[in-house]
Amino acid sequence: MTINLKNFLNEKTKLSKMGDFQDLKQIDGMEISSISADLYDNGRDDLTLFYFREGASYATAYTNNSITSESIEWNQGSNKKSIKALMVNTKNANTFTGEQGFESLDLIAKKLSKTLTLKESKSEKGINETIKIKEILFASTGVIGEKFPLEKIENNIDELVDKLKKDHNKLVWLKTASAIMTTDTKPKLAYEEFSSGSKTIKISGIAKGSGMIAPNLATMLSFIFTDADIPSNILKSTLKKALANSFNAITVDNDQSTNDMVAIFSTKKVKVNQNRGSEDPLIKKFEIALKNLCLNLAKQIVVDGEGAKKFVTVKILNAKSQTSAKKIAFSIANSPLIKTAIAGADPNWGRIIMGIGKSGEKIDKDKLTIKLGELPVAEGGKISEAYDETKLKEYMKWDSILIEVNINQGNDMFECYTCDFTHDYIDINADYRN
Amino acid sequence: MTINLKNFLNEKTKLSKMGDFQDLKQIDGMEISSISADLYDNGRDDLTLFYFREGASYATAYTNNSITSESIEWNQGSNKKSIKALMVNTKNANTFTGEQGFESLDLIAKKLSKTLTLKESKSEKGINETIKIKEILFASTGVIGEKFPLEKIENNIDELVDKLKKDHNKLVWLKTASAIMTTDTKPKLAYEEFSSGSKTIKISGIAKGSGMIAPNLATMLSFIFTDADIPSNILKSTLKKALANSFNAITVDNDQSTNDMVAIFSTKKVKVNQNRGSEDPLIKKFEIALKNLCLNLAKQIVVDGEGAKKFVTVKILNAKSQTSAKKIAFSIANSPLIKTAIAGADPNWGRIIMGIGKSGEKIDKDKLTIKLGELPVAEGGKISEAYDETKLKEYMKWDSILIEVNINQGNDMFECYTCDFTHDYIDINADYRN
Repeated sequence: MTINLKNFLNEKTKLSKMGDFQDLKQIDGMEISSISADLYDNGRDDLTLFYFREGASYATAYTNNSITSESIEWNQGSNKKSIKALMVNTKNANTFTGEQGFESLDLIAKKLSKTLTLKESKSEKGINETIKIKEILFASTGVIGEKFPLEKIENNIDELVDKLKKDHNKLVWLKTASAIMTTDTKPKLAYEEFSSGSKTIKISGIAKGSGMIAPNLATMLSFIFTDADIPSNILKSTLKKALANSFNAITVDNDQSTNDMVAIFSTKKVKVNQNRGSEDPLIKKFEIALKNLCLNLAKQIVVDGEGAKKFVTVKILNAKSQTSAKKIAFSIANSPLIKTAIAGADPNWGRIIMGIGKSGEKIDKDKLTIKLGELPVAEGGKISEAYDETKLKEYMKWDSILIEVNINQGNDMFECYTCDFTHDYIDINADYRN
Repeated sequence: MTINLKNFLNEKTKLSKMGDFQDLKQIDGMEISSISADLYDNGRDDLTLFYFREGASYATAYTNNSITSESIEWNQGSNKKSIKALMVNTKNANTFTGEQGFESLDLIAKKLSKTLTLKESKSEKGINETIKIKEILFASTGVIGEKFPLEKIENNIDELVDKLKKDHNKLVWLKTASAIMTTDTKPKLAYEEFSSGSKTIKISGIAKGSGMIAPNLATMLSFIFTDADIPSNILKSTLKKALANSFNAITVDNDQSTNDMVAIFSTKKVKVNQNRGSEDPLIKKFEIALKNLCLNLAKQIVVDGEGAKKFVTVKILNAKSQTSAKKIAFSIANSPLIKTAIAGADPNWGRIIMGIGKSGEKIDKDKLTIKLGELPVAEGGKISEAYDETKLKEYMKWDSILIEVNINQGNDMFECYTCDFTHDYIDINADYRN
């Protein structure tokens, strides 16, 4: 089904590329709300709340950047086993905001805790337990170093809580995935499900990110929700495995956010047998589904890379180790020269040679083979005898390009994903804050 | 003195930016010749010979790329103490050319040896010693993987040798520096001299390089010549020291050539006291002069960076170690986001925060101070109280920008140099081989 987002989103939300989206399903045990706190001064949705009234087990993974957002620092002090809410704001990264940034989160958490408790006390199934501020997580994405917009957010908490929806069909998911966008040109959504006996396990995930980077408006964020009752420690180990070949296998520009965050939450609504921990067959199934979902979202981020016109897969085969394969893959995928050649549809394989060598890995150049798609390019230390420039130029015009390098020195492989490097990247980033 | 190169160079030599050049002086004991072997099919100079009839002591430094040119592999098998000639060709990198590339060098070396020996036998001061092929070095820069143009080069050796000039004034140096260019828009030349007793020591150097990279047409090459009689082992240690804060402190796009080469040659014409090796006062003076010359050439490469409009200095102060300072400096200097912001004259200091953190070095963000030029930007974990956006925007319009980061966690510093990242970089690199 094709959905025209324009019907469901604030007109001012930036949406230049529209496409088909997977239908995400409702995850019982959570409520969602997205509103405009007018952080952009233009009325677009910019504040989102995920609420788990009976608590959620969860796991998070954060940026490796040694300078991080106050929001990430807040989360690191939160309850480790179970949380009740996640609030996401755009426009402001809450990084290098000093005490003002951290104290704002404290004030917002208190207000949110109070408002949610009040809401519960009014509801039929009122819960006794107060929501503690340590049961609230934050994610922020936007400009670094600007004062955190405490007042605007505080003033909108009543509305945010008021609009929480238990029923979140695909349209709610689309609205939510759009509310967390910054430079993205389209929302990113993915869904997986599988059976466990007579039960169906659902996983719904959303992401944002366009430059793989953050100081401005392009942090990578992803929030994943499941109804399967899986404890936090198992969520943590499973998430770690899923990241290695998905979010950790993509690059847009090799820059890295101070705010990157991936989080998975379980509403615990579907009881499952998973007594044997990470070795349990159900957990194995869950792991596969989660990997697929993360890879799907990661690829959507690359496709929506700032200025990107082409999707590029870099596959390294028969390396000495996976670490070595990964180094070579990213050395190619992060090369501005290779990415500009791809933008120009130029089968300039000399630059791939440069990229392989630049990795620092020891290479036997006589054993190396390089292909672009199915087309041979280089082998035996020189240009391939079957090299066909006409066919290669034709291939390079495609919008999805495969660079396949066979090292022929071992048995390990790694695949990573990137996009081309175009004029639009410069345009988007040359004067962004204005 | 301003020299209009157009009067001295083949019209077709690519020269879009003209400027003033330092006057390079003649180094006695060497002869120079640059001609067109028509490698570009347009008649521009593309083949250069440096000839040391009485031999030269020398030292070289090569790329760290693990895949290297056949020309570099040839050099690694050459006479270690003294050489007689260096031939430089453009248009073809002689990389990934297999046996054809290496055997071509062997055939060219034989022909060159024969032709130079013949020339000497005809001259008044004929030398007895034959020029051995192991006394010839090669440097190649251009496209990777294309058949090496053996025939065109062989056919032009007679003319190349015939045109060797002992007298090489500033105009010969300009012609030579232009003949080794590829994507460069102007030749790069530098000169230093100093006194040793009643004698004057001269150092003349040329360089080429524009993208800091190679697979295409942008290898970094530099050839430096002195008349001071310094043996190869001392040249080697002195060159290594000079590189650390010059050619190894610049980046245009973080890509790295398979062909990068810096070489220094001594014609041994001026006898000097340097009996105490690297501790000798003369060698100390030589080291300082060589450092200045290398830094001068390195900065010229950055200024001529592909598409560059601005020169950027990144200075890291009070880091825990020089290694740490260097990591942070290059993490900033290689960030496409920072470089595009500079192109857009946007004082987007959040990206500098990102760049610092991306280095992986542990940072105490409360101790950090950041300045753009003399203007304070961030301190004490937040935006500086003296932050002045208007002044900063004005400063960012300058064509030379200083990013100064004080880590305040130690006593070591490192300074590196780069350029901004513009549309022109994409234009130059998107479809280069055509």
